[in-house]
Amino acid sequence: MPDPAFSEQVATIEELLRLVSRLVRRRGREILSHFDITPPQFDALLILVDNPGLTMSELCQRMYLACSTVTDLTDRMERSQLLERVRDEEDRRVTRLYVTPHGLEVREAVLQARRRYLAGVLIQLGGGELAELARSLQRVYDLMA
Amino acid sequence: MPDPAFSEQVATIEELLRLVSRLVRRRGREILSHFDITPPQFDALLILVDNPGLTMSELCQRMYLACSTVTDLTDRMERSQLLERVRDEEDRRVTRLYVTPHGLEVREAVLQARRRYLAGVLIQLGGGELAELARSLQRVYDLMA
Repeated sequence: MPDPAFSEQVATIEELLRLVSRLVRRRGREILSHFDITPPQFDALLILVDNPGLTMSELCQRMYLACSTVTDLTDRMERSQLLERVRDEEDRRVTRLYVTPHGLEVREAVLQARRRYLAGVLIQLGGGELAELARSLQRVYDLMA
Repeated sequence: MPDPAFSEQVATIEELLRLVSRLVRRRGREILSHFDITPPQFDALLILVDNPGLTMSELCQRMYLACSTVTDLTDRMERSQLLERVRDEEDRRVTRLYVTPHGLEVREAVLQARRRYLAGVLIQLGGGELAELARSLQRVYDLMA
């Protein structure tokens, strides 16, 4: 029999995690609207910076999108010079995706805008609350990852 | 001139919020794969439970998706009896969207599965850490909302 106080805290945290993650996506989209890149393109950019040289099918898996959608998306990103396709040296049938220097610049500009927005929000917290927030987020990330 | 320690904490929290919100979405998708509903359909369900009677164009705005995509999505949800369209009494040209009792059941079953998953994660935290996590998430939600 689970402790009812624990169950209640879990329900509260489930809702807060869902609401906060929706807000993070929403604010992220608002910030992206000032840049020449769509939200799914920016997701792809972040994934490819962390995982250079993914194949198309690996990127589809990581984005949880149909490959036809991701093909269209990466075509557009290649045209706007955010990424490039490179043939694998060992197996010429395989194409790998890499972020270009311009893609890196766009990523950095967007992340800076996100940090500026968040700085404006977090300035309202005391130093102790700020440390507590970072610690809690790190803890929940480690447990869920 | 911003305090460098503050800037660093903001950068850390920006990254953690992004990573945690991506994990929440990912785990949410894994849980949804056991149910007969897609992730965007579940998003629509949550939005319509909180905002009964939205029009189609209001739902498109809230989902940040093209109306053609949302029309297709709600058509499928109507066929699987998750929601129903009702003509507005005052203005017969307007159609409003409502979640059906079956839609409410599906939502509750999914949320219960999410809470079960999260309980398994959070059981590893001490009582103090759990309270700290809930407090931090509530604080950041209030500041960002």
